Amino acid sequence: MANLHLPLGPGSEFDTVRATLARWGSVARGTGDDGAVLDVGEGRQIVVSTDTMVENVHFKRGWFSSNEIAFRAAASAISDLAAMGAEPLGMLISMTLPDRWRAESMAFADGFGAAARASDISIMGGDFSTGSELNFCVTVLGSVEPARTLSRAGAIPTQALWVTGALGGPRLALQALQRGVAPLPLHRDRFARPVPRLREARWLAAHGATSAIDISDGVIGDAAHIAAASRARLTIELEWLPVISGATMDDAAQSGEEYELLVSATDQLDAAAFAIEFGVPITRIGVVDVEDERGPGLDVLRGGSRVTPPRGHDHFLA
Amino acid sequence: MANLHLPLGPGSEFDTVRATLARWGSVARGTGDDGAVLDVGEGRQIVVSTDTMVENVHFKRGWFSSNEIAFRAAASAISDLAAMGAEPLGMLISMTLPDRWRAESMAFADGFGAAARASDISIMGGDFSTGSELNFCVTVLGSVEPARTLSRAGAIPTQALWVTGALGGPRLALQALQRGVAPLPLHRDRFARPVPRLREARWLAAHGATSAIDISDGVIGDAAHIAAASRARLTIELEWLPVISGATMDDAAQSGEEYELLVSATDQLDAAAFAIEFGVPITRIGVVDVEDERGPGLDVLRGGSRVTPPRGHDHFLA
Repeated sequence: MANLHLPLGPGSEFDTVRATLARWGSVARGTGDDGAVLDVGEGRQIVVSTDTMVENVHFKRGWFSSNEIAFRAAASAISDLAAMGAEPLGMLISMTLPDRWRAESMAFADGFGAAARASDISIMGGDFSTGSELNFCVTVLGSVEPARTLSRAGAIPTQALWVTGALGGPRLALQALQRGVAPLPLHRDRFARPVPRLREARWLAAHGATSAIDISDGVIGDAAHIAAASRARLTIELEWLPVISGATMDDAAQSGEEYELLVSATDQLDAAAFAIEFGVPITRIGVVDVEDERGPGLDVLRGGSRVTPPRGHDHFLA
Repeated sequence: MANLHLPLGPGSEFDTVRATLARWGSVARGTGDDGAVLDVGEGRQIVVSTDTMVENVHFKRGWFSSNEIAFRAAASAISDLAAMGAEPLGMLISMTLPDRWRAESMAFADGFGAAARASDISIMGGDFSTGSELNFCVTVLGSVEPARTLSRAGAIPTQALWVTGALGGPRLALQALQRGVAPLPLHRDRFARPVPRLREARWLAAHGATSAIDISDGVIGDAAHIAAASRARLTIELEWLPVISGATMDDAAQSGEEYELLVSATDQLDAAAFAIEFGVPITRIGVVDVEDERGPGLDVLRGGSRVTPPRGHDHFLA
C-alpha cells in the first residue's frame, strides 16, 4: 500500500486498502505515495516505505536461489525510494524463517547484503521470527529535497509519459517458470535481480520529471495509479512501449515487477543524455492530456485507436 | 533485532543476529538499539524500528480478539520508541492475511487505529499481502534530541536501575491461556493491551536517565542486554522487583512482553513525582556497579546473596 489519501486505481486489492483507510479516518495522516513523507526540517524530507514478500504468493521455492529471494525482496522495497526520487538512507529487514528455510539464513543475509551494496543503502536493523511461512518485510528510508520529490500525484497536463528500460522480461520469465521450463537468461535476470532506478530517478527529478511510479503492477495499472492520484487524463500508445528482446508489445504492457520507472516529464527530455549516463534507455510512451469533461483516467491506444487496456499483472499466484 | 553493533546478551536467537551481522560487515551501519538512529540535522534524530508478530509464534488464535492482536502488534513496536526516549512520528503496517482471517480485516484495522490513537502516532503507510500465516510487520518512526536519546549503551557506574509498573501479569496470563483457563482480568489486560511508556520515557530522559530498554525478554534478560551494550556490571535484587497483584517474585523476574521500561538513572530519581505524573509506579531494583576485573555482566541477588538468574521469557511457543 504505502498510499494513504492519494486515490488508487481500480482493483480488489486496492478496495481493501480503501476500506481500511476509511476505518482509520484521521489517524492515517500520510500524504503517501510509493513511500510516505515526513518533514524533518532544513528543507529535507524523509521518505519511508515497507514491502512484504511471501513464499507461494510472490514467488515459489525453486524459482530463485535463496540469495536472489532476499535480493528481490530488498530491491522491490528500495525501488519505492526510486519512485519518490529519494536518496537511500537505510533499510530494516524483518525475516520470518520457517525451520525448512533455516539453513538458508546466511544465503538470505548475503542476498540482502548484495542488494544493499548495489543501491548503496545501509542495513540499520530488523527482526527475526520463526513461523510456518517465509515472509520478508523490508522497510526502506530515504531523504529528498521537497522540490525534487517525485509523487504519483505530480502529473501535469501537456507533459509526456516516459518509461525506463525495456519491458516484458519478468512476465516471460514468470510464464516460463510456471510452465516448469527455464526462462531465457535475459528475461530471468530482469525477474530475479531487479535494479532499483535510484540515480536515474534523481536525474529525472533534476530534469523536470514531476511524477513517478515504479512498475510493479504493470505499466498500464501503474499509469492508472498516476492518473487517479494526479486527477489527470493520461494516454498511452502501446506501440511506443519499449520491448525487451524476445517479448511482444502485449508482454511489455502486461509485465509486472519490472521495477522500471514510469514518469511524467517535459516532452523535450534528453533521452540520449539519459541513456549515455545510465546505460539504460528511456522512451516516450504517451502524454498527460489537457483536462476534459471525462475527468481523470487512462486511455490506451494501439496504432492511434482506443483499445480496452490489457489485463495488468497479478501478484497473487493463487 | 534492531540491534546492530551493540553487543547482545546471551541466547540462541541472538546468535542468529550475530552471525547475520558478521556476514553483512560494513553494509550494516546502524548504531542501533531498540531502534536505529538516523541524523537528520537541526539537532534532531530519527529513530526507526521494526517488529513482527506471527500467529502460533507470538500468540494463538483464541487468546485475543482480532482487535487486540492488532493492538498488541502495534504497541509492541511503538514500545521500542519509548525505549529510545523518542517522540512518535508515524507507523507503517504490513499485513499478511490468510483467507481464514480475511473477515477480520476491519477488526485488525480498528485495533491498529486504537493503538495509534492511544500513543498519538499516525499511520503513514503499509502493505497488504495474502499468505498462509497471519503476519503483522509494524515499523515505527520517532524523533529524538540527541542529548535526550536513551540507549541500551548508556548505563553509567553508580547509577541505579529502575523499572516502571508492576511485573508478572503477562506471564500469568500466558500460563493461564496455555492451560486453557481464563486469566485474571488484571493479568490479561497487561498481556492483551500493553501500554507503550512513551511520555514516561521522555520524562525519565529529562530527569537523568541515560539508558533504557523495554521489557520484552523479561527484566533479567533485558538487563543483560543493557550490561552487554553498556559494557557495564549490573546488579539486580530480586526482592526489590515490583510485583503485580497475584504474582510472585519469580513471575515478575521471568515475565516477558511487559513493555515496561528498565532504565539506568540517578539514585535520587523522584519516584513519587513520577507516580503522580503518570499514575504508574517506578521502582529501584538494582545498581550499575563500578567496573571490576570481572568485566561486563549481570549479577542477580536474592536477599543479598548471588543466585543463578531465573530463566527468561521465551517468545517461541514451539
